[in-house]
Amino acid sequence: MSEYIEHDRVGKSVGQVEKKLYTFAESSEKMVLENGTHFGPITLAYETCGRLNSDRTNVILVLHALTGDSHMAGVYSEEDAKPGWWDIMIGPGKGMDTDRFFVVCSNIVGGCMGSTGPSSINPETGKPYGMDFPVLTMGDMVRAQKALMDHLGIKKLLSVVGGSVGGMQVLEWCVRYPEMVCSAIPLATTTKHSALAIAFNEVARQAIMADPNWCNGEYYSGKKPDLGLAVARMIGHITYLSDESMRQKFGRRLQDQSDFSYGFKADFQVESYLRYQGSKFVERFDANSFLYITKAADYFDLEQQHGGGSIVQAFSGVLAKFLVVSFTSDWLYPTYQSKTMVKAMKKNGIDVSFCEIEADCGHDAFLLPNERLTRLIRGFLEGVFNDIGR
Amino acid sequence: MSEYIEHDRVGKSVGQVEKKLYTFAESSEKMVLENGTHFGPITLAYETCGRLNSDRTNVILVLHALTGDSHMAGVYSEEDAKPGWWDIMIGPGKGMDTDRFFVVCSNIVGGCMGSTGPSSINPETGKPYGMDFPVLTMGDMVRAQKALMDHLGIKKLLSVVGGSVGGMQVLEWCVRYPEMVCSAIPLATTTKHSALAIAFNEVARQAIMADPNWCNGEYYSGKKPDLGLAVARMIGHITYLSDESMRQKFGRRLQDQSDFSYGFKADFQVESYLRYQGSKFVERFDANSFLYITKAADYFDLEQQHGGGSIVQAFSGVLAKFLVVSFTSDWLYPTYQSKTMVKAMKKNGIDVSFCEIEADCGHDAFLLPNERLTRLIRGFLEGVFNDIGR
Repeated sequence: MSEYIEHDRVGKSVGQVEKKLYTFAESSEKMVLENGTHFGPITLAYETCGRLNSDRTNVILVLHALTGDSHMAGVYSEEDAKPGWWDIMIGPGKGMDTDRFFVVCSNIVGGCMGSTGPSSINPETGKPYGMDFPVLTMGDMVRAQKALMDHLGIKKLLSVVGGSVGGMQVLEWCVRYPEMVCSAIPLATTTKHSALAIAFNEVARQAIMADPNWCNGEYYSGKKPDLGLAVARMIGHITYLSDESMRQKFGRRLQDQSDFSYGFKADFQVESYLRYQGSKFVERFDANSFLYITKAADYFDLEQQHGGGSIVQAFSGVLAKFLVVSFTSDWLYPTYQSKTMVKAMKKNGIDVSFCEIEADCGHDAFLLPNERLTRLIRGFLEGVFNDIGR
Repeated sequence: MSEYIEHDRVGKSVGQVEKKLYTFAESSEKMVLENGTHFGPITLAYETCGRLNSDRTNVILVLHALTGDSHMAGVYSEEDAKPGWWDIMIGPGKGMDTDRFFVVCSNIVGGCMGSTGPSSINPETGKPYGMDFPVLTMGDMVRAQKALMDHLGIKKLLSVVGGSVGGMQVLEWCVRYPEMVCSAIPLATTTKHSALAIAFNEVARQAIMADPNWCNGEYYSGKKPDLGLAVARMIGHITYLSDESMRQKFGRRLQDQSDFSYGFKADFQVESYLRYQGSKFVERFDANSFLYITKAADYFDLEQQHGGGSIVQAFSGVLAKFLVVSFTSDWLYPTYQSKTMVKAMKKNGIDVSFCEIEADCGHDAFLLPNERLTRLIRGFLEGVFNDIGR
């Protein structure tokens, strides 16, 4: 695969976090995708915090979830002061201490947050790709990130860390580039999408494709399929929460009035919350990217793709040390799925720590403040750095 | 409330099952709904199996779930040979033995299966009600059924039986008409919709209302919101199953081909199943009815409406004997919700048997063949009939 060449630098340092935002374009030939097609050039957005040490042994690669982006921590500017999606975990003195580690977060190809995706201009037509964009896999996404690491001159990753779809990329990294990955922290994730997870994604996709504004993906010059995408996001939000967290957060509390509307307004706070989440999401995310990334997640099947149907075989060449974390109330990727991967790792003699964290907040737990998770990650990274990094 | 007058008889006896199908229209004045409006006349479809005994003590009232109908058992004719939705449970020698019991199944007002609903003609305008249909409650539905029982000359119900939304009606019956209900079997149900259950319903409603063919409910002379309704149904189907049942039923099995399509066809069997369920559903169900019945389910809150916020208080006047059944893999109305109602019943000295049945098939378990459930229902009904009915 060809290397990336630095294309544009748009970030700057703000406050305590060393922050840079670059975008990169691939230099030369196209990437051969898992579906057999040739595709490129590819742009990947990424962000870094902290400083690369002289022997380049302090690199942590952070991989984001379905609708995340490369903006993992800190703020871009005083005007654009929204902190990154994992700001609680990444920064000076935090779980991933940027005083010690050089943390890189790469956006995924297929997305809409600065990297090449269905909304990008197809150089062959001068128009957005839309449905001409190829269906990618987690493997393709990770191979694009590998080229980015090559470009940055990073030969070893102290750790690869990510939750949910980010956790799938973590696993792909460990299996594809075993010599490069010293340790890995897959959070709230799975080695393959269950039928339930596929079902939720499929209904979300159907909601988008049922929107007449979707127009088979060619909506970039007209009205967007906002209503369909909002429904898709609402479905997602239900899977990110849990029965218990919704009971605590909303219960049956009414939104505005003391009695029912006896109509189809949002009577309950949970209805209002979902509608709000749906309407906010369409402002920042591209419907086609949602289709492509969920499809890649559904296709993800480590044991089939790397183990000939055996999850034990899939991990057979892996050299990384692992910290695997699941959350009790996560019903999208329940604990039994993490246990399956841990068991397969142990059968291969891999050094793995596993922790199921008691949490009421469902799948989203890995993104929320959790002192136990922070301590686990901090301790694990320090141990690995002491063993390997110095 | 006014009584029903028999309006039309369209059914006939077929095979072993004594079957009649009647529709009824309300005779005179309108019903005062819980939202304060006056509404009527009302038509209710119902079906009976078995024979009413001379002292009218062998009546079982069966109440159906969200999208069910009055066709509970047997077949209508040799041409229309689709068995009723609970044919495995109701019939000669079955769990509800129609050789002994007179079983009545009443459709709900608000539906689209022969009873008055949003698709019915509004006599004041000569057009379908659409969104002019009033938002009903479970209480309204049950009061309409009570008028039907009055019309049939039924003063005592040996048992009231139903699952899911039918179970909510069962509970309403016991609380509203304690003198009339000798026993009750609420299955896979709840005393109030959780935030999670409301959330699923709300997203399903949003899917319907996002369909431009919905036209604020005025679609009866044009294109129907089939795509939105199909998405709503798919969401429902996910909640009716379980992680385990989907794993067993579908796993990651592919639909047609040995490899991925690398497109947006239904690669996986579970996708194909959901699409099929969605497309079948729109042939038989009205989108507006889906909106109204889900809203009634969301509003359902026995403790608020009958107990001033106390579930114990809500059951304080209840005289019925209960068999409460939940299913281990039901995550729409999990066992803890059944336990809450059982505890409240016990605090009131109510005679209640509770059983959590081990089942992998999720919320839908109450509709599927289950020898244990059949035995439980048969035994319970025989006991009650021996005690009270004879």
